[in-house]
Amino acid sequence: MSDVAEAARELRLMSDPTRAHILRSILGSPDGRVLVGRLAEDLGLRQPTVSHHVKALLDEGLLQREPDGRRTWYSLVPAHADRIAETLGWPEGEIEVDPILDRVVQDLSERFRGVFSAETVERYVRESYELLAARPTPGQRVPSLAAQFAADRLDALARHEAAPRESVPEVLFVCVQNAGRSQMASAILRHLAGDRIHVRTAGSDPVGEVRTSVLTALDEIGVPLAGEYPKPLTDEVVRAADVVITMGCGDACPIYPGRRYLDWDLPDPVGKPLAEVREIRDDIERRIRELLTTL
Amino acid sequence: MSDVAEAARELRLMSDPTRAHILRSILGSPDGRVLVGRLAEDLGLRQPTVSHHVKALLDEGLLQREPDGRRTWYSLVPAHADRIAETLGWPEGEIEVDPILDRVVQDLSERFRGVFSAETVERYVRESYELLAARPTPGQRVPSLAAQFAADRLDALARHEAAPRESVPEVLFVCVQNAGRSQMASAILRHLAGDRIHVRTAGSDPVGEVRTSVLTALDEIGVPLAGEYPKPLTDEVVRAADVVITMGCGDACPIYPGRRYLDWDLPDPVGKPLAEVREIRDDIERRIRELLTTL
Repeated sequence: MSDVAEAARELRLMSDPTRAHILRSILGSPDGRVLVGRLAEDLGLRQPTVSHHVKALLDEGLLQREPDGRRTWYSLVPAHADRIAETLGWPEGEIEVDPILDRVVQDLSERFRGVFSAETVERYVRESYELLAARPTPGQRVPSLAAQFAADRLDALARHEAAPRESVPEVLFVCVQNAGRSQMASAILRHLAGDRIHVRTAGSDPVGEVRTSVLTALDEIGVPLAGEYPKPLTDEVVRAADVVITMGCGDACPIYPGRRYLDWDLPDPVGKPLAEVREIRDDIERRIRELLTTL
Repeated sequence: MSDVAEAARELRLMSDPTRAHILRSILGSPDGRVLVGRLAEDLGLRQPTVSHHVKALLDEGLLQREPDGRRTWYSLVPAHADRIAETLGWPEGEIEVDPILDRVVQDLSERFRGVFSAETVERYVRESYELLAARPTPGQRVPSLAAQFAADRLDALARHEAAPRESVPEVLFVCVQNAGRSQMASAILRHLAGDRIHVRTAGSDPVGEVRTSVLTALDEIGVPLAGEYPKPLTDEVVRAADVVITMGCGDACPIYPGRRYLDWDLPDPVGKPLAEVREIRDDIERRIRELLTTL
């Protein structure tokens, strides 16, 4: 069980609030290194206090020093930098969202040139960002996720508007959080069908990330998640779908004529022990295999 | 900075090795709950010791109790279960890989029916698993990743064997770790080109995960990573490519006639401070935009 002990040791090094602040300040500094004096100023602490903690982090091998005349710079030991960033999160205060979204609008306008006007792209990018930003999740990278969400939605819109209808059937799975049932269903269908079927997912009240227990249960049957992410239900993905499968989201899904609607009555795996998540997974898998024979 | 303080507090609760073992034992129990007596047996600890730590975890709100006659079951508070699982990792001792790979072979044989024989699929699945398992990464879900890797390789193989050649140009980016340069390049090209270009990546000596600093630098320009993962360089992806772009991997990439080869001389962003990662990102972006005008 030494991997648990090692994880616990690493956590302990980062679990002192002052040390966590020091590590994060270094992460956020423009060139990845700091002086103790400025660090103390930034954190509003006395210099001896900061020196004490910096020394402890040096001794533990998380920091390295670099003498520079009379001064000494401190930076993260590269081998640990990523683990520290993942555990404490990158400092995000500096990100200015508007210029990023402007870029995304420009890039996607180019990508969808001849299909959608720049105004349409702009509307989808801004709305996608607002939908995701309304449900902030720690560690989530909202601007780039919004770019992906907007591009996926524009794809769905293009697909719906394309005439004649393409021959690849499109299936949409909708549950509440888009983090458990619908993710398992879409991962299994993608795995089994590949390019033969186009799969989308959404949630009536999405959360930030696909649950770890769901990833584990999928891994046990060799099914990859492949870049899916929880996202809210939007109109164009329903319009683009040939089959809409709802799982516990009740009336949240709009009904359009000409689509096949199925409602699968399945318990929510969120917060359940792995044994129950497995049962839900197996139930979903049986239904997917049956669905496949009808597509 | 209260998010850092909160992260530090959570880490502290899990950073005691005994508590980490208790939490992980509960995660791994078949129905997600344990009795103190059996927990003590499993961990080889005295019952009063375990009781003491269980009480602390109860007080901190990580565990909940459920009386059952004279016994008391303890389980994780659902709201914390996922965070605990992510930080400590799921217990993985139980996973038997062979039955999972058998399933994957069966599923992918069905998916590629009429294109590849079951024997070919089996060979690719087993080899993909071995290539990934040879470089184990903590927290990586190897069986499902192997399924994705095998499916991607079979897609490349099918594409190469398809005649006449499809009209979507295919670009392959190869660097050493497949965690920095090639991931940034592929993410930017996918973002800009969408379905118009097929993008693949590989590394001559891949590591487990795309670097956090790379994800952050991409997020700053609104570019999603979209489900990519580091993987070794294999023959069929080179054969499937129209353009092969190497970045620092030197002679590792085999040369086939009829492909366009480019070598981009770029520093490795791994372990670099964010300011330098940004410079590398901007350099890559300029090259990608130029490349796009030639495809």
